[in-house]
Amino acid sequence: MSSGKILVAQGGGPTAVINQSLVGVVLEARRFRHVTRVYGALHGVRGIVNEDFVDLTQETSHNLELVAATPSSALGSTRDKPDEQYCERIFEVLRAHEIEHFFYIGGNDSSDTVRIVSQRARAAGYPLRCIHIPKTIDNDLVGNDHTPGFPSAARFVAQAFAGANLDNASLPGVYVGVVMGRHAGFLTAASALGKKFADDGPHLIYLPERVFELERFLADVKAMYEKHGRCVIAVSEGIHDASGEPIASLLAKEVERDAHGNVQLSGTGALADLLCDEIKDKLGIKRVRGDTFGYLQRSFIGCVSDVDQREAREVGEKAVQFAMWGDRDGSVAIKRTGFYSADYELLPLEAVAGKTRTMEDEFIAASGTDVTDAFRMYLRPLLGSGMPDAFRLRPAPVAKILNR
Amino acid sequence: MSSGKILVAQGGGPTAVINQSLVGVVLEARRFRHVTRVYGALHGVRGIVNEDFVDLTQETSHNLELVAATPSSALGSTRDKPDEQYCERIFEVLRAHEIEHFFYIGGNDSSDTVRIVSQRARAAGYPLRCIHIPKTIDNDLVGNDHTPGFPSAARFVAQAFAGANLDNASLPGVYVGVVMGRHAGFLTAASALGKKFADDGPHLIYLPERVFELERFLADVKAMYEKHGRCVIAVSEGIHDASGEPIASLLAKEVERDAHGNVQLSGTGALADLLCDEIKDKLGIKRVRGDTFGYLQRSFIGCVSDVDQREAREVGEKAVQFAMWGDRDGSVAIKRTGFYSADYELLPLEAVAGKTRTMEDEFIAASGTDVTDAFRMYLRPLLGSGMPDAFRLRPAPVAKILNR
Repeated sequence: MSSGKILVAQGGGPTAVINQSLVGVVLEARRFRHVTRVYGALHGVRGIVNEDFVDLTQETSHNLELVAATPSSALGSTRDKPDEQYCERIFEVLRAHEIEHFFYIGGNDSSDTVRIVSQRARAAGYPLRCIHIPKTIDNDLVGNDHTPGFPSAARFVAQAFAGANLDNASLPGVYVGVVMGRHAGFLTAASALGKKFADDGPHLIYLPERVFELERFLADVKAMYEKHGRCVIAVSEGIHDASGEPIASLLAKEVERDAHGNVQLSGTGALADLLCDEIKDKLGIKRVRGDTFGYLQRSFIGCVSDVDQREAREVGEKAVQFAMWGDRDGSVAIKRTGFYSADYELLPLEAVAGKTRTMEDEFIAASGTDVTDAFRMYLRPLLGSGMPDAFRLRPAPVAKILNR
Repeated sequence: MSSGKILVAQGGGPTAVINQSLVGVVLEARRFRHVTRVYGALHGVRGIVNEDFVDLTQETSHNLELVAATPSSALGSTRDKPDEQYCERIFEVLRAHEIEHFFYIGGNDSSDTVRIVSQRARAAGYPLRCIHIPKTIDNDLVGNDHTPGFPSAARFVAQAFAGANLDNASLPGVYVGVVMGRHAGFLTAASALGKKFADDGPHLIYLPERVFELERFLADVKAMYEKHGRCVIAVSEGIHDASGEPIASLLAKEVERDAHGNVQLSGTGALADLLCDEIKDKLGIKRVRGDTFGYLQRSFIGCVSDVDQREAREVGEKAVQFAMWGDRDGSVAIKRTGFYSADYELLPLEAVAGKTRTMEDEFIAASGTDVTDAFRMYLRPLLGSGMPDAFRLRPAPVAKILNR
């Protein structure tokens, strides 16, 4: 006799559309007659081991739709990275509650958790269907054309740079915008989509896929500043030297590491300030400003791609369909099938778990400080409809009288 | 014989709607039969002394409308603060080009420039009509209910905090968001409009209208963190100690001052980082993150209040009408006439020029770390239509089995 119980949880950094996936799971699961309960775990895997569950079967469809359109993780999230022992506790709780389907929405760390729990259940002979649902603004999951959450964050970054470029054109100087992305430069590269006219910024883009050399950087900035009388620069927080040491951590007083051993890169303006100081000191440019986009780029309410919303909903729905109609665990992935359309497939957990995708070489210009048209074609449809546009006055100069 | 020549320029920091005012001037001026030319000066007063003019009479209405909807200053701006000699040069250029009407869109420094040029023209017996058109995200012009540009920036700040609060609820810790505003806390206070539920952030708001004491701040944060298990804090970049020394400049390695003698507060993450370090060190809280909203809050493309757009357009239109139908120089001001409606009046330049409005006491809660309902009523209609909203799952707890 089947219990008909399902559990869903959200892990890792929140996104603008992660609740779409949650609601996709809940509403789709409630359509299956044998499903008796849809539980949500509060704060990801931590909520599972603590048995902090809420019954989503008792939530209205109407409120679920409103929550779906709300950014960040409605169930709460966690940065815990379960080891084998932690996964054992997860499994014991799932078994105690007779959970038959486990859906975990998250990035590559989360997919690794799903992989271990899936293995553990199989070893114990307990019938548990485990599905990982992709989510990350970093766009760094392998096997996916792109990941839900990335398009909306990319839209924020593109809009931010479109505006920063206009601001910088109005009051010329050097502007450095630091964007999230530890290993993958996709989000930083999205800054290029804020560019419309040939002389618009960002004029330089620094990605973690290329080694960052300070001398080269200063020479690039100098050249652009001389050409345009100003310079807008997009920098990934993950830029590093040839040895792989993050530029951000080279200057941090006290390096903070999370449970995954990662250095804290976000939530500090240190990298932008360092780069601005170098430009002021070495190039003698007076007006140099740095912004660190920080949490705004993943949390800002009111900047979302409708394509991203739709797909985030669908990966949740498809996860349930794969679980109900298929016979294996896996990770839902987005495949591009047209310009633009997408379909979904279920990849083996081993193909995704713990792996990191970085920007393909074909997306990075030979200069190393720009993107290619292939990247623009890749990203543009994902940003969705209604992208704001910038317009200029056309020149009609007036003859000088006093300064002739 | 009248030349029928008009000059318009934009000064100070760009806003999301300053081009609405520009286009309001241009389109309204072109309706008057005796107007032969509408010139725009590039980069504010600097463009005037350099005679860098463009002829806006040769721009299509259609493109002007597109430019109106584009943020930042389409003519370019400047931080130059003209002294008497600089104003003399402005006046000489205006006279050489037979300019009869001078419209300058800007903040209180710009209004002071208009005041000096107006005096100079009168002293020389040259018939020049000088009108200042209000603009500033700081909302610090006296005699105005509010200033164009502020509502859109306030909307950005409110949306940013609504999102940051959701993010912080998902991954609890302390979040510090630093908002622009050297002397006036209006924009920082707008963070309160991102709050929906009683336990939402921002839990603490620090304004330049109140003396900032680090010990008191740490005690406030500790209390909120103990109450909510997290704490979202809005801080004005202009917070200062009892002697008036900005907290930001107390730690800056090298203090940068602009032509107005103002310390650089924006374009650096130093203040947020300092406050985060204090919270980590003194309170022992591990997850502490700081964001500095920087230029995003005034330049972000795609976050604008429709009320702000409309009013920014109207102050431009009214400036021309006051100039054409009235007989005195002045500064256009917004008056509130209903909940919500506005009208416009022309104040004497002396009433506005060089003065700074700060937040009225009735808008600041007795605690000094929150706003009042009077402020919420004041600001809410200005944010415009279509404000995004945040929704939550309603609790339906599940009984524990293993951890009973």
